[in-house]
Amino acid sequence: MATILVTGGAGYIGSHTCVELLAAGYDVVVVDNFSNSKPEALRRVEEIAGRKLAAFHRADIRDKAALREIFAAHAIDSVIHFAALKAVGESVAKPLMYYDNNIAGTVALAEVMAEAGVKSLVFSSSATVYGDPASVPIREDFPTGPTNPYGRTKWMMEFVLSDLAAADPEWRVALLRYFNPVGAHASGRIGEDPNGLPNNLMPYVSQVAVGRLPQLRVFGGDYPTPDGTGVRDYIHVVDLAVGHVAAVRRLAERPGVLTVNLGTGAGYSVIDVIKAFEKASGRPVPYEIVARRPGDVAQCYAEPTLAEQELGWKATRGIDEMCADAWRWQSSNPQGYPD
Amino acid sequence: MATILVTGGAGYIGSHTCVELLAAGYDVVVVDNFSNSKPEALRRVEEIAGRKLAAFHRADIRDKAALREIFAAHAIDSVIHFAALKAVGESVAKPLMYYDNNIAGTVALAEVMAEAGVKSLVFSSSATVYGDPASVPIREDFPTGPTNPYGRTKWMMEFVLSDLAAADPEWRVALLRYFNPVGAHASGRIGEDPNGLPNNLMPYVSQVAVGRLPQLRVFGGDYPTPDGTGVRDYIHVVDLAVGHVAAVRRLAERPGVLTVNLGTGAGYSVIDVIKAFEKASGRPVPYEIVARRPGDVAQCYAEPTLAEQELGWKATRGIDEMCADAWRWQSSNPQGYPD
Repeated sequence: MATILVTGGAGYIGSHTCVELLAAGYDVVVVDNFSNSKPEALRRVEEIAGRKLAAFHRADIRDKAALREIFAAHAIDSVIHFAALKAVGESVAKPLMYYDNNIAGTVALAEVMAEAGVKSLVFSSSATVYGDPASVPIREDFPTGPTNPYGRTKWMMEFVLSDLAAADPEWRVALLRYFNPVGAHASGRIGEDPNGLPNNLMPYVSQVAVGRLPQLRVFGGDYPTPDGTGVRDYIHVVDLAVGHVAAVRRLAERPGVLTVNLGTGAGYSVIDVIKAFEKASGRPVPYEIVARRPGDVAQCYAEPTLAEQELGWKATRGIDEMCADAWRWQSSNPQGYPD
Repeated sequence: MATILVTGGAGYIGSHTCVELLAAGYDVVVVDNFSNSKPEALRRVEEIAGRKLAAFHRADIRDKAALREIFAAHAIDSVIHFAALKAVGESVAKPLMYYDNNIAGTVALAEVMAEAGVKSLVFSSSATVYGDPASVPIREDFPTGPTNPYGRTKWMMEFVLSDLAAADPEWRVALLRYFNPVGAHASGRIGEDPNGLPNNLMPYVSQVAVGRLPQLRVFGGDYPTPDGTGVRDYIHVVDLAVGHVAAVRRLAERPGVLTVNLGTGAGYSVIDVIKAFEKASGRPVPYEIVARRPGDVAQCYAEPTLAEQELGWKATRGIDEMCADAWRWQSSNPQGYPD
């Protein structure tokens, strides 16, 4: 069976993807610098899968010497590249840190892959590359133009990898544009464990429900949406993880660059999510509506049919299951992973 | 007088800018890795200016330790950042090399500048960021979207520096979008010295006139232009160099980000340039018209008035002077700089 290197494999989406790769029979090597994740996540990945990772390496992907050792030690067939910083607000305050980590990291990884003759890469992109879309649902051929430095790093990394594939037709690249990943593995053993105050809605709601935070602030109640709050395409992290396995399979079949949305195609408002979470958890989620947050858009959801055509994949888990699984993780791990 | 660090100071535009900085009384420190330039250029800069550089350092700007030593050794007031790879065709073939050199180099430089508290930067951008413009003349508020990896590195570096200035209002950044720099210092002692086959029109024409190359190929004779050949805004490199001195002065007066075109506002066709060069050199420039080159646009010239308003600068040297000066350099240095 093929061996997959997962960068950032201890992170939220990375850890769930490792579980699905192991379940599908792949050998999995993880590299992570644990800047925003914990080794415990990998221990639990092995526990859920009932199989060991082939290896894990603590290293920063900007460290080309360390990467070269990893490619020398394992016969890697393909790479899934998650390792990146991901907080929008932090990227506005510290743009150089984001450009350095994300762009320089991706360039270093691609350079070492090319040296090693490993030219198959699944890249963790984001719907944020679309910026403020002219209409919804968003198709892959819509114009791009993100509105913050984090989004610009994802956008630029797409250009770097597309230019690379144009220069060398042996490359196989999947650019997966995620919508809003939420939820957790059904076991409740792995899930999203943000450092400090959560940046995203679902972990914030979870921490309010579990009593770790007092109240949710909803940014904007006057958007042109059914209930006035922002609408997003939430996708269960396990569906997303399965989408990565499908992308790895697809790359093995055909070279070139494939750009696909990974979303459900359904939009839910902030209020929808709060109600679904209250139902799933049996706990109240107190909230107040405050001013809009600069840079937020009213609605963002995917046209998901290309992924179905190209990957034979579609999301199957609905909002209730997302909330139930997020709550199982949060309630059994109220402080996240132990150190 | 202020001390200016010039990265890539031994290069074509860098060396001419060093001459004008020295003439204006600035102290000048150069850092260059000589990957595409020669130390002899700096010796001639000092000869023309009749003054010594404060220092020059052979280093790669991606080497943060080397940069830190330079900032520790000199009280730098402002940086003019030229150091970058610049060949469009090479960038298509080797995109990672371009993203690594240009983006990682700029991020490393900005990081070390921020550490050292030096927050004034004049950046060597390019009209290539406009891609294929909807109309001419091109204004700074036109949409951007370059058509090749080289152009994308310039575009991304503009975003990196703009995001940095947005995060920290102490930064002063000038993004100078050059049109087509040509010509040489009137002394004939410094000029453009491409490695291998020239990528740009004027050095190619010069090498044909001097007998180093047999014939010019003109890419496209069927563009919607007066004579069917492509039209560009050629700007004398000494005018461009003077524009950099004006930008350094402007940044000392006012923080924030200034984006300006440096062009003449006049468009000349390839045939116009050939005729002007034949007149200036007294030599024939044989040419043949061949197919268009992918990615080339029909017409590209600047709306130059913003630079006049913001920098008090405009180009004063015409096409005949550009050709005469290019010819003086080429004919007295037919093989470029000695090693």
